[in-house]
Amino acid sequence: MTDNQQPTPNMLPTIRLANNDQLPRIGLGMWKVDDTRCESLVAEAVEAGYRHFDCACDYGNEAAIGRGLQSVLRSGSVSREELWITSKLWNTYHRREHVRSAVERSLADLQLDYLDLYLVHFPIALQFVDFDVRYPPGWLHDPDAATPAMQLDRVPIAETWAAMEELVTAGLVRNIGVCNFGTSLLRDLLNYANVTPAVLQVESHPYLVQDKLLRFCQQHDIAMTAFSPLGALSYVSLNMAEPGDTVLSEPTVVEIADRHARTAAQIVMRWGLQRGTAIIPKTANRDRLRENIDLFDFELSDAEMQAISGLDQHRRFNDPGVFCEQAFNTFCPIYE
Amino acid sequence: MTDNQQPTPNMLPTIRLANNDQLPRIGLGMWKVDDTRCESLVAEAVEAGYRHFDCACDYGNEAAIGRGLQSVLRSGSVSREELWITSKLWNTYHRREHVRSAVERSLADLQLDYLDLYLVHFPIALQFVDFDVRYPPGWLHDPDAATPAMQLDRVPIAETWAAMEELVTAGLVRNIGVCNFGTSLLRDLLNYANVTPAVLQVESHPYLVQDKLLRFCQQHDIAMTAFSPLGALSYVSLNMAEPGDTVLSEPTVVEIADRHARTAAQIVMRWGLQRGTAIIPKTANRDRLRENIDLFDFELSDAEMQAISGLDQHRRFNDPGVFCEQAFNTFCPIYE
Repeated sequence: MTDNQQPTPNMLPTIRLANNDQLPRIGLGMWKVDDTRCESLVAEAVEAGYRHFDCACDYGNEAAIGRGLQSVLRSGSVSREELWITSKLWNTYHRREHVRSAVERSLADLQLDYLDLYLVHFPIALQFVDFDVRYPPGWLHDPDAATPAMQLDRVPIAETWAAMEELVTAGLVRNIGVCNFGTSLLRDLLNYANVTPAVLQVESHPYLVQDKLLRFCQQHDIAMTAFSPLGALSYVSLNMAEPGDTVLSEPTVVEIADRHARTAAQIVMRWGLQRGTAIIPKTANRDRLRENIDLFDFELSDAEMQAISGLDQHRRFNDPGVFCEQAFNTFCPIYE
Repeated sequence: MTDNQQPTPNMLPTIRLANNDQLPRIGLGMWKVDDTRCESLVAEAVEAGYRHFDCACDYGNEAAIGRGLQSVLRSGSVSREELWITSKLWNTYHRREHVRSAVERSLADLQLDYLDLYLVHFPIALQFVDFDVRYPPGWLHDPDAATPAMQLDRVPIAETWAAMEELVTAGLVRNIGVCNFGTSLLRDLLNYANVTPAVLQVESHPYLVQDKLLRFCQQHDIAMTAFSPLGALSYVSLNMAEPGDTVLSEPTVVEIADRHARTAAQIVMRWGLQRGTAIIPKTANRDRLRENIDLFDFELSDAEMQAISGLDQHRRFNDPGVFCEQAFNTFCPIYE
């Protein structure tokens, strides 16, 4: 239970979006947070100063997060207007007729009237799976099939985007955006969109810098949110990275951390903030919650920023071109 | 003048497209071939056995190529049906109302009734420049401006593609396709296209292998044509590569060349063919014309193919994200 007598820190710094909404620069990433931990974690995070929660249908824990949000809202420690809740449209709901049902399901689970941001999770359309058959439906069309595989659907992004725009008009979401798009797909979207994407969410860390993509977003007034801002960390348990792949043991990072008397993780996150992205680190650890937002009383020098950017390996851990084949028997590249 | 008494070699091997048309596996790339050389070069190439010419409005030499084509067709050494002529829609003609005028101009210059293949040159739409103002218009909107720059236009690829499809219906082109698209942009196009792209043309060589993109194309029955199949060579004179960037001096390549008693260039081109791409090497040198198609009486072993693919550096020489900024004062990334 959040204790309102303990003064909570002020709202974290924000990025002002095109419509003047303010996206908090740090959000709590809810991917892989265990269902049973969500409720208490939301309360602890709000107490620690978090206002921004990055959710998705596919994470399978929106109902549990919803209970946590209800609890902090009822306690009065924070108002709905102070919170920033993001969710994401799953791949099976790209057809115009499914987009609204999908957001309504997320809203019901999260116990909210509106989302601050709703993102297209991947530029991949999968065949619809009825809500009653399986929710969240995941990547596989029929997990019990002899050779379970993805079933792609032929839905243009323009159709999905038009349906996303209708959610804004209907007042169900304040902002819309996309994830895992590159510059060409984004440029094409900008060329037909009536509502400009407010946010692009992509993997980004010192091993995957993507300076041009960030610059492109800034040029078009699109805020860029970096997921997996610490790199390999989230992927080791999924066998999508080796423990040795972490940028946190890079001598460059360790040395800068020593100089500032901060952890390597804080240096890497500060780099993410200072270059202009929002970041959504995940943790279910109470101390880490605080460590991960304690990033605003020090600054990296230009030389330090450049040294960290210089670690770029164009190394992507979350690549459907790799994991869809390994885990879902389906070749589905999106980045090459 | 082509000498018909000298028996020309038979048609080069082809890739059968979805509509059963046959794309010759090797074409002569006409980019940067001097206007004054085109006419004689077309004749020499046909005599050497070439049937496939890769042209584009933007290369600025279609009228000269047209004179060469007229000459070989009149001589009777080759029929129109035996030739494969590709041209490309320039960036300034992406709006529906300009696509037909653009192909008609290319057809008039090339002195042809139809093209075998018409490609969208880049996924970049620039503001229209009237044919009477400047042709070909190039990248800059007004080259005489104080700070010349590109002027992007807001044209969705879907609009351009619909107009490309109308060219097929009108019988002006037999096949349509795109250049410089990645998997996500291509997948989106496949999701709304009525006429499936027959060909994707992209930069590809041992420093830019793009195995996933090739596999994606094969999965969707799209032929992939590799431009710059020899790598850096074309870019040194444009200051877009250093002489040392060439893959032709890679020990791996040199060693394989020695083993087969072939040139390094032949090894690299054979690798391109053997992995399934069509290739369009450019040369204006009579001996090289023959060298570049003399690739069908030897074969690389699996180990040799893998060794060459292993040279991959994800190194792109023709990247608008770099050259548009350097040469045209405009930031326009498409690959990140």
